[in-house]
Amino acid sequence: KYVFLINQNLLPFKFNIFTSKNHKSTCYAIKNMIVRGAGAIGAAAGFAMAQAFLEAPKRGFFKFVETAKKRIENTRPTAQNLFYATNKVFYSAINSEKPVKTAIETAQKIADEDAHNCKLIGEFGNKLIKSGMRIETHCNAGWLAFVDYGTALSPIYTANMKGKDIFVYVDETRPRNQGGRLTAWELENEKIRHSIIVDNAGAYFMSKNMIDIIIVGSDRIAANGDVANKIGTFEKAICAKEFGIPFYVAAPTTTIDLNCKCGADIPIEERDKNEILYQSGVSDKFKLTKVMIANPKSGILNPAFDITPAKYITGIITEKGIIKPSRNSIQKLLAN
Amino acid sequence: KYVFLINQNLLPFKFNIFTSKNHKSTCYAIKNMIVRGAGAIGAAAGFAMAQAFLEAPKRGFFKFVETAKKRIENTRPTAQNLFYATNKVFYSAINSEKPVKTAIETAQKIADEDAHNCKLIGEFGNKLIKSGMRIETHCNAGWLAFVDYGTALSPIYTANMKGKDIFVYVDETRPRNQGGRLTAWELENEKIRHSIIVDNAGAYFMSKNMIDIIIVGSDRIAANGDVANKIGTFEKAICAKEFGIPFYVAAPTTTIDLNCKCGADIPIEERDKNEILYQSGVSDKFKLTKVMIANPKSGILNPAFDITPAKYITGIITEKGIIKPSRNSIQKLLAN
Repeated sequence: KYVFLINQNLLPFKFNIFTSKNHKSTCYAIKNMIVRGAGAIGAAAGFAMAQAFLEAPKRGFFKFVETAKKRIENTRPTAQNLFYATNKVFYSAINSEKPVKTAIETAQKIADEDAHNCKLIGEFGNKLIKSGMRIETHCNAGWLAFVDYGTALSPIYTANMKGKDIFVYVDETRPRNQGGRLTAWELENEKIRHSIIVDNAGAYFMSKNMIDIIIVGSDRIAANGDVANKIGTFEKAICAKEFGIPFYVAAPTTTIDLNCKCGADIPIEERDKNEILYQSGVSDKFKLTKVMIANPKSGILNPAFDITPAKYITGIITEKGIIKPSRNSIQKLLAN
Repeated sequence: KYVFLINQNLLPFKFNIFTSKNHKSTCYAIKNMIVRGAGAIGAAAGFAMAQAFLEAPKRGFFKFVETAKKRIENTRPTAQNLFYATNKVFYSAINSEKPVKTAIETAQKIADEDAHNCKLIGEFGNKLIKSGMRIETHCNAGWLAFVDYGTALSPIYTANMKGKDIFVYVDETRPRNQGGRLTAWELENEKIRHSIIVDNAGAYFMSKNMIDIIIVGSDRIAANGDVANKIGTFEKAICAKEFGIPFYVAAPTTTIDLNCKCGADIPIEERDKNEILYQSGVSDKFKLTKVMIANPKSGILNPAFDITPAKYITGIITEKGIIKPSRNSIQKLLAN
């Protein structure tokens, strides 16, 4: 009945569990990024949908869960895993004789499936990583962003477990600094050597031959292999192409949305300008606080994601194997 | 005898004048970026050199000013204007019968020359800007970064004065946010329409045909046209080339360093990791404060500049006209 989430807005400074008592509260957690990351959003959305089935009154049951579904889907527009989860829980439940029980079981299954897929992504992705490699990653696609293991970081964790000597360049990832806060914290926990860099520094290190491979996650993949991911991903992909550095996207097949023929069909979330005007952090007394860091009378534009066209992507690492980002490869993969 | 500097670390939140009573204090101001920006560093370094001549004791005069010169030159390694200014003041003064007077006059001349050059850069650069254009700029190369007008922003100011309708995308410019703080503040003061974007968003707006031209400043230009500028410039240049967007560098000829044959010869300043670990700003009571924004146990790499090779640059806007970034064009320009 309750959903427990690590409050990711407070990491790495405070470890706090957000307890969501109903589906509206879980919606709040998704919208305000208490839970974030493609797979974690998907799992939370699945549980929110199950919560709605639990909460629905006998009279107007269908109307209630249908409204709840829309509410959950309105929290974040870009992450495909969210819609995958709400649809899967909703349709399996309403077509079942025991809708509540089925909703809960399906939500749990989605979470388990996510963790399992991420583990397999790690095993396939690990094959790309040789000992001595220096890997750049953008944003956070680690175990915080998923149910476990993560996507972009999963191959790194597997490589590390196998004893490979690796080094990770962690893009800070403005405006919410998920790289500097979350990825860096995960890597520290895993005892993997790494350095945080500002997003501006990618091309500099690439030009000095200090980056061997780039691996990022994805929030939605179109049928032709175009990839939506955290704003800034596209710049890294363009630079990687310029320097001939392999650029991989790691994502479970649940991230693929065949309804989007190409990247232009993927909706891009425009988030609040205060994310750029203010910066959250902790004071010297480790108190959470935020400071204004830009000219307050200026306009601000804050797209949260960008689209990297398939031609910039070396391959997509899925739980079923590594494929070229093309319509054909994606169709074949999903048919398996 | 005193040097007065706008404390740029406090802008746009507080307007404060830093009064430097001697050359060591001016060195402190340069090193800690109370004064920053290629031209402003040059002017401040010239005045610091003049201060040293004023302070030098009769006995050991030469030794004193020579040591001071080295001290000034050790503050920031990348900006060519700094070395141009110290050398010009130093050698004109020691070869003069009235070294102190000559030092002061030369320092003043460098400052006046900088303002004059920037005005001419504005007039040449203005020819590139058509009404309706949307311009992206990185970091701050406006009147705060120089004695007046600025370099990258000077053409924008001229175009605006001539009544052209323009819009500016202001890269936030991590880690010190000179774009979001200083460029945005300058543009607001000049009543020019603009929006701050995170550095990650450049390629996104370029891919949507929302950027017509990019103009940036420079801290040093090598003899072959390679350009050192604020970290992140190179990423914008690579993306601009990918989308066929003209990419211009605006700088006075004093920024050219013929001793650097190519970009690899330009020293890149590595700054303190705390610039990335902490973020300065103002609290809700408009009190200056800083917060920790990244995982404190992680490594951090903080190169302050990068090198954009000549092949990515459409042209260099100087006070003598706009040239192609090539050895030949630069030699011809300097011979004029």
